[in-house]
Amino acid sequence: MLETNAAPPQLILKLAYGFWHAKALFAAVELDVFTILAAGPMDLETLMAATPIHQRGARDFLDSLVALRLLERDEKGRYSNSSESDLYLVRGRPTYIGGLLRHLDARHYKNWKSLTRALVTGEPQTSLGSGSYTDFYADQLTQQLFLQGMTAGSLPAVRTLARTFPWHRYKTFADIGTAQGCAPVEIALMHPHLRGGGFDLPFLEKEFAAYVRRHSLSERLTFYPGDFFSDPLPSADVLVMGRVLHNWADSVRAMLLEKAYQAISPGGALIVYDPMIDEERRSEPHALLSSLNMLIETAAGSEYTAAECADWMSRAEFREIKIEPLQDVHTAVIGFKLPAPAL
Amino acid sequence: MLETNAAPPQLILKLAYGFWHAKALFAAVELDVFTILAAGPMDLETLMAATPIHQRGARDFLDSLVALRLLERDEKGRYSNSSESDLYLVRGRPTYIGGLLRHLDARHYKNWKSLTRALVTGEPQTSLGSGSYTDFYADQLTQQLFLQGMTAGSLPAVRTLARTFPWHRYKTFADIGTAQGCAPVEIALMHPHLRGGGFDLPFLEKEFAAYVRRHSLSERLTFYPGDFFSDPLPSADVLVMGRVLHNWADSVRAMLLEKAYQAISPGGALIVYDPMIDEERRSEPHALLSSLNMLIETAAGSEYTAAECADWMSRAEFREIKIEPLQDVHTAVIGFKLPAPAL
Repeated sequence: MLETNAAPPQLILKLAYGFWHAKALFAAVELDVFTILAAGPMDLETLMAATPIHQRGARDFLDSLVALRLLERDEKGRYSNSSESDLYLVRGRPTYIGGLLRHLDARHYKNWKSLTRALVTGEPQTSLGSGSYTDFYADQLTQQLFLQGMTAGSLPAVRTLARTFPWHRYKTFADIGTAQGCAPVEIALMHPHLRGGGFDLPFLEKEFAAYVRRHSLSERLTFYPGDFFSDPLPSADVLVMGRVLHNWADSVRAMLLEKAYQAISPGGALIVYDPMIDEERRSEPHALLSSLNMLIETAAGSEYTAAECADWMSRAEFREIKIEPLQDVHTAVIGFKLPAPAL
Repeated sequence: MLETNAAPPQLILKLAYGFWHAKALFAAVELDVFTILAAGPMDLETLMAATPIHQRGARDFLDSLVALRLLERDEKGRYSNSSESDLYLVRGRPTYIGGLLRHLDARHYKNWKSLTRALVTGEPQTSLGSGSYTDFYADQLTQQLFLQGMTAGSLPAVRTLARTFPWHRYKTFADIGTAQGCAPVEIALMHPHLRGGGFDLPFLEKEFAAYVRRHSLSERLTFYPGDFFSDPLPSADVLVMGRVLHNWADSVRAMLLEKAYQAISPGGALIVYDPMIDEERRSEPHALLSSLNMLIETAAGSEYTAAECADWMSRAEFREIKIEPLQDVHTAVIGFKLPAPAL
């Protein structure tokens, strides 16, 4: 007999159409709807005149954004930004994360077509999978989208870190794998007593310098060129290693943590953050799926739990290890290098 | 100043990563994880041996499905299907909707890459946009995926319709744009007194006949070959027109409703269903986004509200029009052709 009174497949349908939700958001960011609406509420005609959106799908598109709670629509039919869209999706605001969404759209949406192949082969499906960032960054447009994506994707986590870590106890810091320098900039902006910089491959110096200059921090932030496979890490009171360990195999992680321990001043700290898997491996899909993204993108990377990270850090001699969720999709694990005991 | 205490962009991140959720589900269906688990709970090793999934991403992938609530995992680490997955994602069950997910994955995920272009041009972005289903169906694999997608996508709605419409009052029915014949089969299975069939383009006869034969209904269900632009619709007490009107411009919709009125017996009914937009155009993103799918897929199609549909039906002389949500993503609008008044 047919099971005619069964509940409808609501969860399955909700998950299945998730890519529609994502693409509607991505298109709105690409068409800069939120930046245009930052000027104030607009009716359909005004908004259409201000964007390249064709009349045919305009109303359904904008009402989709209302139904997705990215826009609001008043009783006169005028559209405006939701408070979250206004804060995060208006170009030019310091909180803008459109770069992340452009990155997800231009890079990840395409990469994820190959999820099944990655699952079956265990092999990366993108050019980054070779492990060479130099090759990867060779294409200028890829580099720009990737770097802006990294910056926007780190921004909320880095802001939380800048606000919550006891930076007043330290004088110097360096961000390892800094890309444009999003982390040093946010930390330096919030803590004027700190000096430091960012470590990354030499050809990223220009990008870093430009980003730091835009934030008027060139006096306090330095670029440390290097390759963490062959070079030591810069010395500082605090090192930050965000979205780095998840790209690499366990052996590389251990090597990087040991190098970090060497570079940190006695009494200093290491802050590692990544989208970490919950300890039960069942309550938060984001980090588990992010681990599949590492499967698609890298030769041996994956996400991991905070407990695994704490274990690796303690093997590298870090002590008083603490776990701090960063309010977005990231978690930080913080370990301290004890001062040398008094003789 | 930076707005450092602002709420994190949680809604934006949730929407942005929706394509990860969708693709994880699609990959699990493609790899037939749920069918394999229908045999009973399996630990990681057993499940890996039963599927082509490589060891590297296996645990993260399966735990992702747990976190998405598609699988369960017991205290011994054994995976099993959730009740919804067991009902809808196990191949061979009459409730299986894997065909819809394969269709969304193979066709829509790719099509939606072109959303921005569709929004800017107002033009369809797929081969179906020419309006010729004959050309479209010419590719055998495309046809199979599309037809199975249509069937699986209609199944939950059609089951609700089969259960809730007062079929006992009628003797004959025909489904317009029937494809494989999913609607006539479900209705005939639940109501043994009914006879009827499905109307579609002539080359679909073989598909229809095979599908009906698999359900042992060849005695009661007939294929009506025809083109609804040039031919009349088959006569019956009840006509069903599901996921048809949304493909076409208003003028075609009016023509089809008039043809339906001509074909229906006095006292009979027309059932139209589509993913209809809520009247306020703000509470349900699905139908609004489905309208964008029509923008991508068709030259002049779109979704519409139940009130708009009721208005079109009343212009075609239907009366006592009722609106019935079908519990999945579809809504039905039902209109009646009044019996001729007694002289």
